[in-house]
Amino acid sequence: MNAPLAIAPSILHQAETFADGLVLDCGVRLAPLRVAYRTYGTLSPARDNAVLVCHALTGDQYVAEVHPLTEKPGWWDALVGPGLVIDTEKFFVICANVLGGCMGSSGPTDTNPATGRPWGLEFPAVTIRDMVRAQALLVHSLGIEKLFAVIGGSMGGMQVLEWAATYPDRVVAAVPVATAAYHSAQNIAFNEVGRQAIFSDPDFHAGQYAAHGVVPARGLAVARMGAHITYLSADALTRKFGRRRQEGAAEEMFQVESYLRHQGSSFVQRFDANSYVAITRAMDAFDLAAPHGGVLGQAFLGSRVKFCVVSFTSDWLFPTVHSREILRALNAAAANVSFVEIASDKGHDAFLLDEPAFHATLTGFLGGAWTRR
Amino acid sequence: MNAPLAIAPSILHQAETFADGLVLDCGVRLAPLRVAYRTYGTLSPARDNAVLVCHALTGDQYVAEVHPLTEKPGWWDALVGPGLVIDTEKFFVICANVLGGCMGSSGPTDTNPATGRPWGLEFPAVTIRDMVRAQALLVHSLGIEKLFAVIGGSMGGMQVLEWAATYPDRVVAAVPVATAAYHSAQNIAFNEVGRQAIFSDPDFHAGQYAAHGVVPARGLAVARMGAHITYLSADALTRKFGRRRQEGAAEEMFQVESYLRHQGSSFVQRFDANSYVAITRAMDAFDLAAPHGGVLGQAFLGSRVKFCVVSFTSDWLFPTVHSREILRALNAAAANVSFVEIASDKGHDAFLLDEPAFHATLTGFLGGAWTRR
Repeated sequence: MNAPLAIAPSILHQAETFADGLVLDCGVRLAPLRVAYRTYGTLSPARDNAVLVCHALTGDQYVAEVHPLTEKPGWWDALVGPGLVIDTEKFFVICANVLGGCMGSSGPTDTNPATGRPWGLEFPAVTIRDMVRAQALLVHSLGIEKLFAVIGGSMGGMQVLEWAATYPDRVVAAVPVATAAYHSAQNIAFNEVGRQAIFSDPDFHAGQYAAHGVVPARGLAVARMGAHITYLSADALTRKFGRRRQEGAAEEMFQVESYLRHQGSSFVQRFDANSYVAITRAMDAFDLAAPHGGVLGQAFLGSRVKFCVVSFTSDWLFPTVHSREILRALNAAAANVSFVEIASDKGHDAFLLDEPAFHATLTGFLGGAWTRR
Repeated sequence: MNAPLAIAPSILHQAETFADGLVLDCGVRLAPLRVAYRTYGTLSPARDNAVLVCHALTGDQYVAEVHPLTEKPGWWDALVGPGLVIDTEKFFVICANVLGGCMGSSGPTDTNPATGRPWGLEFPAVTIRDMVRAQALLVHSLGIEKLFAVIGGSMGGMQVLEWAATYPDRVVAAVPVATAAYHSAQNIAFNEVGRQAIFSDPDFHAGQYAAHGVVPARGLAVARMGAHITYLSADALTRKFGRRRQEGAAEEMFQVESYLRHQGSSFVQRFDANSYVAITRAMDAFDLAAPHGGVLGQAFLGSRVKFCVVSFTSDWLFPTVHSREILRALNAAAANVSFVEIASDKGHDAFLLDEPAFHATLTGFLGGAWTRR
């Protein structure tokens, strides 16, 4: 693997700071609280056209512009923009880096005021609900009382569900994509393997690697490689790579091995290991029914939010059965809900890729909800 | 993770040594060649009742007796024994540690005569075919011209297919279980993540860890943790652990996390990292159709072997679709084949667990083949 670049600390991310901070679910007050974000389009005079996009585990706020670190297009560049599915000529699109992240929002790389060192592993445990409440502070500070829509896939979809449950009067429409109302044992297991790979890297130094001038690049790369397999379907891997050998490589290897190594080594140049640990733990802890006596429907009782639940047939990380559980709960709560299972062989990553049927679903749902708002 | 014990080098495994060795598929002559093995039951005077059991990636020859390192029952203790499915009052059961393994057969822990050091990563690349040819030497040395049956699951099933293809006249019946005729891109990917976890461990020392008095325990444990998830179905993990927290643990964690850590730390006490690398590479390279112009049926043309192909509904590592490909090829070759897909929610590991329908299938097939031999 190539030697990684340390994450450039000099990048200035657009951010809002909240002096009083937030009392997290773990009981700790995190103050001041910083929420880094990006917006696209223009807020209407009625302030009624805001669409909050929620990013996934390794995503960030750079949705529809060149990424400042990787210099690659935004992760939803194909969906968010003028004339696109989430039309920035019509909507004011907001995306915030999640709490615990490493792209400008409060996270483990910040200094712990009690020690003067980076928080590292001692960053207070954050939850999906904490992430959403931080976003709510940002949305309020932007002068928006009610979001037209909250949209996100994977962990972004968890945030969408949490938004609808926590702030039902501040959301018109919610689109949870390729997600679940709780993290399954298998998903916790995959996350735990990633964390153990990070913890096993001697450059991790119990999370205080910055003081040693290193990053746990090998461990984080292995974590990414393992996770990346779960984002694709077996069929997609076969179609992309099959059993073809990598030509011109220094050692004999399959193309799929070369591809994964590249995924691992490029990831460590843009992501922080402590953030990876903090955010995967937030995903693992997510169980929207738990505070409602284990009855998911109770989380949505009386909700007037319009839901569009989307899953993909070949997604085995957040399979359709998890979306159906959400659907059943919403129906039990007599919520306004439509559900679409998109035929795709691309696996979990389908929500990030060119899937015309998904894009058409989103266009139709947003258009209808906008007309009937 | 607990500090691992180094693998006890003092255990003497029953073994046969072949002075001339074997010219491996990679072109290297490995001589002398050592094949460690165990037998159960008695060879009949007609020498016609031998059943070769082939073990999986992390299995070994201790099929039906207390394991000398772990002191746990043999891995197929429930199937192999007096009056059991593979009845040792009727059959003479043989199981050999695979070439490249770490339980007494020639492998990376042996001394490389050219350097005087352990082979480590420089152990010649072995293939599934090499493993089978080593077993064939052993079987011949035991005075057996024709095996009544060859049986194995997962990588053991690959060996079964290779036996039938390479030595069609030396096998009466073949039972490939939960396996495939080639390793898929997804399976290669999972193996590669495991190897990278091992390579990333600073105690690996490019495979020469023995000279440093250490073992790459953390990397090997992470490899095992990741692989272990693939051996179980998502439903099995949910049923076993769900989202329950581990009580009495020093830190807060889910039961599934605690379970995986235990799987990792106990594995490193019985398995060698270089062997893990060598054997996973043999699995990845396996493609039985490749030497036959990509036409799998050609590997079995004219075969008189009786096949019983078995898969499990919830096995996503070697899903039924792979067994169906084997079935189609055998049918195209006009081979004698039966196929059973066992309904099980236990995942890939079902072949090792208490699955009455699988055991009944095996009993029926072996009984019928024995009567009609």
